[in-house]
Amino acid sequence: MTIAAAVAAVVGDGAVITDPDVADAYRHDQTPMLDAGRPAVVCFASSTQEVAAVMRIASETRTPVVTRGAGSGLAGGANAVDGCIVLVTTRMDRVLEVDPLNQLARVQPGVLNAAVKAAAAQHGLSYPPDPASYAFSTIGGNIATNAGGLCCVKYGVTGDYVLGLEAVLADGRVLRTGRSTVKGVAGYDLTSLLVGSEGTLAVITEATLRLRPAPGRTSTMVAVFPTLVAAGRAVVEISRAGVVPSLLELMDHTTIVAVDDWQHMDLDRDAAALLLAQSDSADGGGTAAIAAACSQAGADFAVETDDPDEGEMLLAARRFAYPALERLGATLLDDVCVPRSRIPELVEGVEDIARSHAVTVGTFGHAGDGNLHPTFVYERGSEAAEQVVLRAFDDVVRLALSLGGTVSGEHGIGLLKRGHLADELGPVSVDVHRAVKAAFDPLGILNPGKSIP
Amino acid sequence: MTIAAAVAAVVGDGAVITDPDVADAYRHDQTPMLDAGRPAVVCFASSTQEVAAVMRIASETRTPVVTRGAGSGLAGGANAVDGCIVLVTTRMDRVLEVDPLNQLARVQPGVLNAAVKAAAAQHGLSYPPDPASYAFSTIGGNIATNAGGLCCVKYGVTGDYVLGLEAVLADGRVLRTGRSTVKGVAGYDLTSLLVGSEGTLAVITEATLRLRPAPGRTSTMVAVFPTLVAAGRAVVEISRAGVVPSLLELMDHTTIVAVDDWQHMDLDRDAAALLLAQSDSADGGGTAAIAAACSQAGADFAVETDDPDEGEMLLAARRFAYPALERLGATLLDDVCVPRSRIPELVEGVEDIARSHAVTVGTFGHAGDGNLHPTFVYERGSEAAEQVVLRAFDDVVRLALSLGGTVSGEHGIGLLKRGHLADELGPVSVDVHRAVKAAFDPLGILNPGKSIP
Repeated sequence: MTIAAAVAAVVGDGAVITDPDVADAYRHDQTPMLDAGRPAVVCFASSTQEVAAVMRIASETRTPVVTRGAGSGLAGGANAVDGCIVLVTTRMDRVLEVDPLNQLARVQPGVLNAAVKAAAAQHGLSYPPDPASYAFSTIGGNIATNAGGLCCVKYGVTGDYVLGLEAVLADGRVLRTGRSTVKGVAGYDLTSLLVGSEGTLAVITEATLRLRPAPGRTSTMVAVFPTLVAAGRAVVEISRAGVVPSLLELMDHTTIVAVDDWQHMDLDRDAAALLLAQSDSADGGGTAAIAAACSQAGADFAVETDDPDEGEMLLAARRFAYPALERLGATLLDDVCVPRSRIPELVEGVEDIARSHAVTVGTFGHAGDGNLHPTFVYERGSEAAEQVVLRAFDDVVRLALSLGGTVSGEHGIGLLKRGHLADELGPVSVDVHRAVKAAFDPLGILNPGKSIP
Repeated sequence: MTIAAAVAAVVGDGAVITDPDVADAYRHDQTPMLDAGRPAVVCFASSTQEVAAVMRIASETRTPVVTRGAGSGLAGGANAVDGCIVLVTTRMDRVLEVDPLNQLARVQPGVLNAAVKAAAAQHGLSYPPDPASYAFSTIGGNIATNAGGLCCVKYGVTGDYVLGLEAVLADGRVLRTGRSTVKGVAGYDLTSLLVGSEGTLAVITEATLRLRPAPGRTSTMVAVFPTLVAAGRAVVEISRAGVVPSLLELMDHTTIVAVDDWQHMDLDRDAAALLLAQSDSADGGGTAAIAAACSQAGADFAVETDDPDEGEMLLAARRFAYPALERLGATLLDDVCVPRSRIPELVEGVEDIARSHAVTVGTFGHAGDGNLHPTFVYERGSEAAEQVVLRAFDDVVRLALSLGGTVSGEHGIGLLKRGHLADELGPVSVDVHRAVKAAFDPLGILNPGKSIP
């Protein structure tokens, strides 16, 4: 029996794809330039039991398994390898329970982030993590990559909201980690170990998520800067002022113009940078204190509004940042993160790198976390331009490391950053990573070639 | 050469204890009733290099190593085993760096929690985790047990403030985990894996801690309840109201009377329970909304104050809870945690258990987290009473599990809860724990017999 037939016997004929043309859509995520193999079969699991049965087949036949949700990843973490089983979780898409008193939700991995938010909102609660892909990315993928988003500066990342997991091990056994209580120290923190492990340790089949009371009234501020470095300094000043914004985003000149060319939003096309901030609390002075810090750092002017609709309009420019840059050509998006105080050096260094390679870069991102997305734009289809951009990309990653930062703030390692990971971790950590991987997956069948060096 | 001589050659003669009488103080933590072995040597390391050299000796000679800070643990996690090296970190007690712009501190493991708080306060920042032992417990021990405290209901536990670690592996190699950025997804979350691992995976030699802006003005509320269950219901009502207190503590009648007998604080000795709450934010209505929720749940009355000194006086009763119970006899302190909504059942069940075994119990703790410390009080030196209390203690742990809770909210497993851990984890998780342990410590020399089943 072929792998495909064995898998079909588990999930049903209606839940497998073997036609290479149809399977093609499941071979890679949204990252450009990366290799993707040809799977033996793509299958859609409907239950933990089916995932377990697929993993038993994989273990017995030593077949690689690449798990994926919506495939919205930006590091190639879900790219297929030749002969693998692509295990798709999108049919396991139920919110199993919302418990308003204990402020938690139990969900399947294939549910969309937006659906979890909506289910929480029905009970006056919120599920904060908000990657840009929240409308179409799955919770399983969010957990596998420890996805970030705009809220992180105040509310943290996906991992901060995962209380417990159900996951299928490489040999098909079902592991439960964590708990339904807000505190607990029984045993090792296997939950956090699985969060961000990019499908290399186990297949997540259920998650218990922490919810929060819905945030209070939100005010919004936009500040316009004459230089990018001044905007970077403003981030430091806001931190120094002791304010905790609920959102603090940056857009550089290239990004501003790209958005305005597309959306005609009357943005200040002369601005070197914009900072957008929100505050959902009066603690620390809210947006007024943020605006004052921006002025002190050299902002030309700052506007504030308490009106939620006006606030959403101001934020819209930021939400269009990446698609606006994508309209200009092929793109390669970086995801470096540095200590907040090093942002001025990072943004200046990125501009220097772009200049020295003569490439276009648009920088935007989560300035409040030190997590920026310098995005290189180049001519579609040009191999030569691609090579130049790859070198500039490498330079940015090295710059971030030299500033005490990390090669990936929120997108993950996948295939894209695998070459850089060992530089960040060092040899002892690499050895420990391999030992942990072997403890979970001795045959090495779970997402081989991804994430770990 | 003996183990003691080899270790002395590393740390110096002035940094070892071999005299059994002097070493006795380093054989156990503060947990009653548990066995403690006789170490071959107690040593005080002064640097990462010394810890690494000690671990190399331990690996070469297959000698167990029990790491400890101040020995303030409440689960026997730092109790010696026969022939071991007790590795004391209290001389590695420096705050290496406070970085106010990036709101982080780099510290050695032997520094006291209170010293980290003080160093942060000098920069207008706070280090929130506040175990009851904060004045005398070390950060290394806090991290090894993932210590909680009173702030957790709003600010989380120790692990939420650990960005990165330096740790010495069993074979003496030095591992660095995590980073100095607030976000980062490069590699497995080894930081969280080491947090709470109770010295069984590595020896923590440095920590990078996240700090926060100092909290705003704090208001305090005390509510008096006619029944313990009504106080439990109030916790649920506060959560339902969408308020996030910065502290929410419970004391039952036995505890109130014990504190008042000792401190003469004019507490309401007829009360079945007190709830003490603080709010450091106006969001959600602050203590006024908390007081309203208490009244709705059946509180006899509630008082509020915005005066910090008055607030501290009201809180003092809670701070005296455990020492007040200790004055009544020998004590055995439990540390169960349940989903918040199950607190009424937990407190009622604990009273039933105490009644059925005819033992005295005083229940207090972090009600806002569902984490309570039912404390059995019995006649000092009575073997018979001790046996009865142990049975009641087991019943409480089983009750917590039956309510969807955990056997330990914040004190850890150590020796005390080792028998209960497998019940909570289940066989697959136990296997994974053992595989992870073997990946880090193949010889099994790090704190053997503790924490994992």
